[in-house]
Amino acid sequence: MAVSSARGMRDFLPRDKEHRDHVLHTIESTYHRHGFESIETPAMEDFDTLHSGLGGDNEKLSFHIQKRGLSTEDLQQASSPEELSDLGLRFDLTVPLARFYASNHGALPSVFRSFHMGPVWRAERPQKGRYRQFVQADIDTLGEPSTLAEVEILLATADALERLGVEGWSFRINDRRLLTEALGASGIAPEEQPVAMIVIDKIDKVGVEGVLSELAERLSPGWSSSRIEAMLGGSLEGFDQGAIASLMGDTPTSYAVATELVNWVSQVSTLLDPGVVVFDPTLVRGMGYYTSSIFEISHPALGGSLGGGGRYDGMISRFLGREVPAVGMSLGFERLLEVLPPSEAEHLDKVALTYDAEIPSAHLMPIKMHLVSTGHQVRVVSQSRNMRAVYERLAADGFHRVGEITSDTARSEDIVWRDIE
Amino acid sequence: MAVSSARGMRDFLPRDKEHRDHVLHTIESTYHRHGFESIETPAMEDFDTLHSGLGGDNEKLSFHIQKRGLSTEDLQQASSPEELSDLGLRFDLTVPLARFYASNHGALPSVFRSFHMGPVWRAERPQKGRYRQFVQADIDTLGEPSTLAEVEILLATADALERLGVEGWSFRINDRRLLTEALGASGIAPEEQPVAMIVIDKIDKVGVEGVLSELAERLSPGWSSSRIEAMLGGSLEGFDQGAIASLMGDTPTSYAVATELVNWVSQVSTLLDPGVVVFDPTLVRGMGYYTSSIFEISHPALGGSLGGGGRYDGMISRFLGREVPAVGMSLGFERLLEVLPPSEAEHLDKVALTYDAEIPSAHLMPIKMHLVSTGHQVRVVSQSRNMRAVYERLAADGFHRVGEITSDTARSEDIVWRDIE
Repeated sequence: MAVSSARGMRDFLPRDKEHRDHVLHTIESTYHRHGFESIETPAMEDFDTLHSGLGGDNEKLSFHIQKRGLSTEDLQQASSPEELSDLGLRFDLTVPLARFYASNHGALPSVFRSFHMGPVWRAERPQKGRYRQFVQADIDTLGEPSTLAEVEILLATADALERLGVEGWSFRINDRRLLTEALGASGIAPEEQPVAMIVIDKIDKVGVEGVLSELAERLSPGWSSSRIEAMLGGSLEGFDQGAIASLMGDTPTSYAVATELVNWVSQVSTLLDPGVVVFDPTLVRGMGYYTSSIFEISHPALGGSLGGGGRYDGMISRFLGREVPAVGMSLGFERLLEVLPPSEAEHLDKVALTYDAEIPSAHLMPIKMHLVSTGHQVRVVSQSRNMRAVYERLAADGFHRVGEITSDTARSEDIVWRDIE
Repeated sequence: MAVSSARGMRDFLPRDKEHRDHVLHTIESTYHRHGFESIETPAMEDFDTLHSGLGGDNEKLSFHIQKRGLSTEDLQQASSPEELSDLGLRFDLTVPLARFYASNHGALPSVFRSFHMGPVWRAERPQKGRYRQFVQADIDTLGEPSTLAEVEILLATADALERLGVEGWSFRINDRRLLTEALGASGIAPEEQPVAMIVIDKIDKVGVEGVLSELAERLSPGWSSSRIEAMLGGSLEGFDQGAIASLMGDTPTSYAVATELVNWVSQVSTLLDPGVVVFDPTLVRGMGYYTSSIFEISHPALGGSLGGGGRYDGMISRFLGREVPAVGMSLGFERLLEVLPPSEAEHLDKVALTYDAEIPSAHLMPIKMHLVSTGHQVRVVSQSRNMRAVYERLAADGFHRVGEITSDTARSEDIVWRDIE
């Protein structure tokens, strides 16, 4: 009989669970203050909803739920495993949010700020730090065409990171339209631009040289590398629309986009510590659905990011049939836990009561109940020959105050408390 | 393109989500105080773990996860759909807890009190009030052989129900061993007793007459109905061991069990309101794994129960290979929501800021940020021609204080607040 959790999935013991819940609660309550409201969607979506093309490569990693009541004949007649599945487990929270909005938009305010948190599942090869079930926490503003949406989302996220005590993080910012202009101005045809972006996205792994040589390999000849090289090198003089536009295409569109970008990014910068917001001309973000602003949370201790997002104005229409402006940010909750200082949740006053096996529970329980009702967290532990092991266990679980209940202990006031380390 | 959630599963909008979270948090924090500690297990378990025979009829309702990378040949060679599945979604929290304990017992205290909460999935035919994804909240004490476990679990649960403001509930209590004695003393052979218990379990639906006639139909002849009839009629004179034992078999075993039962149930009763704890000789509880104490939470507004549990000393050994005493209680969270008075979570001070489209977000956001940092929950809303609709929406979402931000509003202190209904 197997006694381990399913491959790539984790159990959480009380200490870890308490820490995770504390972090989730801090994130949730911060976003609530900023006007984002909690919603919940089911773990499963219809197979076709989940595999509508919006999930990118993650669609291939979805767990498929088998149809109920299949016969052997059904199996033999199926031409693919997909035919035997009608549901799937969500692999992110973005596709379910788009479906949720399409289902419920009539009952939501015209600008809807959502906080959406929960487990997602991906059938990846398990490895250190990568699991098949993990938690995501997304905020999204739906229905707001102006860059107020970007500003609110970044400021709320900065506040959450601050309340959690994360240090050294920064926002990297770019705009997909600037990338498009820069690629076009370098003579890369629109149909080859998606490939070029995928290659540029690898810069953190392969460096400038690696990107340039892979571009040379994969693109049709006839494009010029000088602008791309300047862009990848990040040779930007000052954060102003002139400098950004001349780096990123030098076209009327790039000037207009750069002006918008400088305007909203400056608003965010003004309200945060200097240097926290950084324009990064090489930032691409993998997902195909981003249409303009894109951003990522960097942390020096991590190869990847702590989270990221952007504007995806076209996506909701896939489910709803009409365009709805949308901006989102997804926090990498599991990565956040890696960089967090080991902080403690606010505890109740934890006390332990030891008792001899002779003490009837009729004597013990009224004393426990009184301590509970006066705000303590109470664990009762029977005495054993090895009390040192008992105390060590209690201290390891965060119980540092112990009282012995004897037949003479009539009320909790009679307890003589002692501290244990 | 489908725009509804998967069949039998629900979206939760902010108002509902907030209420659910508030109730969950109250349950969780109450059990914490009583010494139960939160754990988490994954949504999926290995197929064989989940279908080990411990889940009773619920095993038939599990959602099966399809193996990854199946070929058409695999489909054709499979002799049953089960062969194409290696994982399943949990249908309760008891089987995962038993597996969790077997996996992690070395890192847990010798008496471990667990609070285990989360969604479970069952492929039932959806109907009013019955969903395919729903939340369960279980507490279990593992490793405590004495009835202290029963006493602690019932007192903690009573405290949770009280803190939630549930009224009119009661505990119905019985012991499986008493039922066995009563059936044996009536001449029902051990091999027919499980069937007899299943029939007796229907008493709430079919009444005493219904149970007696179905017993007559399904049992081999030669048993006597008089004791069963007295038991089903609940003709018990006073709650003492003599009366219980003579009703339930009149054997030395029934006296011993009744004495133990009266002892621990009296302890619970003494600390709760009179009449809250009721001995019910007809209580069976469906699951096969209960070995002695069984209990259920009744509520006058419900046909079924608000939750229930009992002692299942043999179960953990199925995974661990050695016996571990265990007592558990499962709260029917979704049913609890049905009987709860409409209470509100403790809110942050919710305020809305309206602004004209001309107001730049650079002007708006510092004011919002100041309000957030001073403990408010803030929603910004652009002004529209139909401000009445805007105010109605805000009031419906719990925002009853509105301030207008104009170009003259320099700081949050300048805002003139007005109340809306």
